[in-house]
This record gives sequence, structure tokens and C-alpha cells, in this order.
Amino acid sequence: MQHRQIRGLYVIIDPGACAGRSPAEVARMALDGGAQVVQWRDKRRDKGDQLDDARAIRALCRTHGATFIVNDHADLALAVGADGVHVGQHDLPLGAVRPIVGSMMIGVSTNTVGEARRAEAAGADYVAVGAIFPTRSKDLTRAASLERLREVRGAVRIPVVAIGGIGASNISDVVAAGADAAAVISAVCGAASPERAARELTAAFR
Amino acid sequence: MQHRQIRGLYVIIDPGACAGRSPAEVARMALDGGAQVVQWRDKRRDKGDQLDDARAIRALCRTHGATFIVNDHADLALAVGADGVHVGQHDLPLGAVRPIVGSMMIGVSTNTVGEARRAEAAGADYVAVGAIFPTRSKDLTRAASLERLREVRGAVRIPVVAIGGIGASNISDVVAAGADAAAVISAVCGAASPERAARELTAAFR
Repeated sequence: MQHRQIRGLYVIIDPGACAGRSPAEVARMALDGGAQVVQWRDKRRDKGDQLDDARAIRALCRTHGATFIVNDHADLALAVGADGVHVGQHDLPLGAVRPIVGSMMIGVSTNTVGEARRAEAAGADYVAVGAIFPTRSKDLTRAASLERLREVRGAVRIPVVAIGGIGASNISDVVAAGADAAAVISAVCGAASPERAARELTAAFR
Repeated sequence: MQHRQIRGLYVIIDPGACAGRSPAEVARMALDGGAQVVQWRDKRRDKGDQLDDARAIRALCRTHGATFIVNDHADLALAVGADGVHVGQHDLPLGAVRPIVGSMMIGVSTNTVGEARRAEAAGADYVAVGAIFPTRSKDLTRAASLERLREVRGAVRIPVVAIGGIGASNISDVVAAGADAAAVISAVCGAASPERAARELTAAFR
């Protein structure tokens, strides 16, 4: 499924960030608003209990022609037929995940040029760089910057996803810095209208 | 690796139950004491952070000719070359895990005859039945009994592992009820001498 692309608005659906709404409903609204990549991320529930939500969002992405990524769990990604899996610095390393997922896309969290280059050399399909801006997300405690994003964009050939504190007020800055995609959580999942929020954010890529 | 067997003392190594000792050191002592199956279970850390411990215990099991099982995570099981993966009622279901792990063993937690029969019919390599006795382990909130163990043993052909509250005082009861293996956590991991505790428990199978 490597024809799927990583570009545009990349919405991470975290059930804990959906303001009590169904994750699949929030994903549907984000896709209606123009999200081109959706990542499923649930750090609280066991994987069996995530299966229905992940499958529902997988199906929505297929309908919308969007790329579907599963965070962290290669086994869950395979179980739901995702387009890719995303691994952070504390997840199984790329070298361990590649034999498991075959040609599935693998994205890797990085926040330095060195990490991004190593990920590309090891076969990553894209890298995420962040946190670009301050964020309350506990998973992004390492800091990057717009300047770092520019450096990484200049150092690798694979798509670069900016992440961390991105919203309507600053998404044009990450696009100007060369980001192929911008990953958001609360700016869409927590919005009164995830569809309107996604539409507004997507406009930055035009 | 289906020639590996599930029988005798089945020690679950949970870092949180090892009384501050290194999980690999506790596993080594359990194996020296006669454990024939070791399961790695870490519900706290991310999988990348578990990799060194899991690989060390994988290597120890190979040296000792013991079977090595990884709890819950098929991807981690594949990454470390485990003999099997064990899934509970909230993990990915057997039908989703089998295509991912191929011929690797899959164990399934059950606590009724119906669940055990369904697991066997779906291709499980063994079932665990519990909790046989009261336990403080939060993962075993469902109750079974020695009578239930006998019923399951009579209802399936695959190995049956008794689990839950098993220690030196009652392991002979589960063996008498037909258990092929007895799974323990604190009785070995929390013992002053995991090796002596394992030796004492292993004797029940002779």
C-alpha cells in the first residue's frame, strides 16, 4: 500500500481527546473536512477493545481515499489492514517492525536531523518532527522548532510530518518551513466542529 | 516452533512482581529451578523499552530448553523470536493474531468450557483456565475453580494451563485436577529464592 501518500492534514484520533464523542464520528468529520491522513492512537485500552473503533476508521479512510496509520502497534495495524504503522522512540524500533509488516508504511518520530537521516537510511517511509510548538500532549516532551523542521526537510527525501502544538494560527508556518503534512490532535479532535476545523487547517496546504 | 511443549511449571515474569530484581535474573533462577515455560509480561512500559529484557529472557529459555511466550503483543513476540504469544479476553482475538504469527503457538485465556472449546476450534495451541484460586492480580478478575479446570481438561485436547493463586500449598490440587501446566507469578517472582520456589513447585508434576 505504499502508493498511499503522507501529505496535507494528518489527524491523530485519540479517544481521550475527542471530547466524549465517538472516535469514528470524529474521524468521519475530519475526513469530510479534508484530512488526508488519519492515525489511530489509543494508549489506554487493550488492543482487543480498540479493534471495533480502529476497523471503523480504517473503513472510513478507504471510503475517503485517505491514508490510515496505526500508532505503535504493528500487530493491530496488520489486524485491521492499515496502510502504515507509526513508531516513536519508545516503541519497537524500525528494524524490528519492518520484517513484521512487510511493505506497509512505517513512520518514525524524530526530532533531530541525525535521527531523521538514520530513520530514512533504515527504511522509514516518512518521519515526524516535533514538538514544533509547545503542546500539552505528554507524548511529545522533546522539543524541536521551525528551524529544525527546515533542516530535516533539507536532509531527507521522504515525507516530513510536522507535529506538536499545531493549529489554525500557526499551520501556515510549518507549511512554509517545508512540512509535507501537519499532524494535529486537539485542534481537530477537540474542536466544536472537527469538520470545520479540518477544513480550515487543510486550506494551509493549498 | 510448535514442537515446544506447554507442561510443568509456567512462570510469568512481570517486572512489577520481581521485588526490585532484574527480570532476566529472576527468569534465570526460575529456569534453574525447573520452570519449563516462561512468559514475559510487562503491562507498564512501551514495547521498545521492553525489548532488552524480553530478548535476554528469550535467550535464557533457549539455553534451558524452555518454551518462551510473550503476553499480549504479537509484534513483540515476533520481534524477539518467541515460541508463542498469549492473548487474553481484551487482547487481539485469536483469529486476528493467527495470520500475523503464522505457526507460532497461541495461548488463550479462558474460564469456561465454552470459551476453551471455541479457542481450540479456532486453532489455539493451549488454553489457560483461571483464576482457580483467589488472587490479587488485577488481570484475573474472573473466577474459575478446580471443578471448572477438570471440566475444561475433559473438554479439549490441547494443553490446559491452570492459573490464579497457585503456590506451594495448592499446586498438587491443580495437577490432580488434570492441569498440564501451572502458571504462577508471585509464587516465584516474589519469592526470596525464585530458584528454590520453582524447584518446590516443579516437584508437584513428578
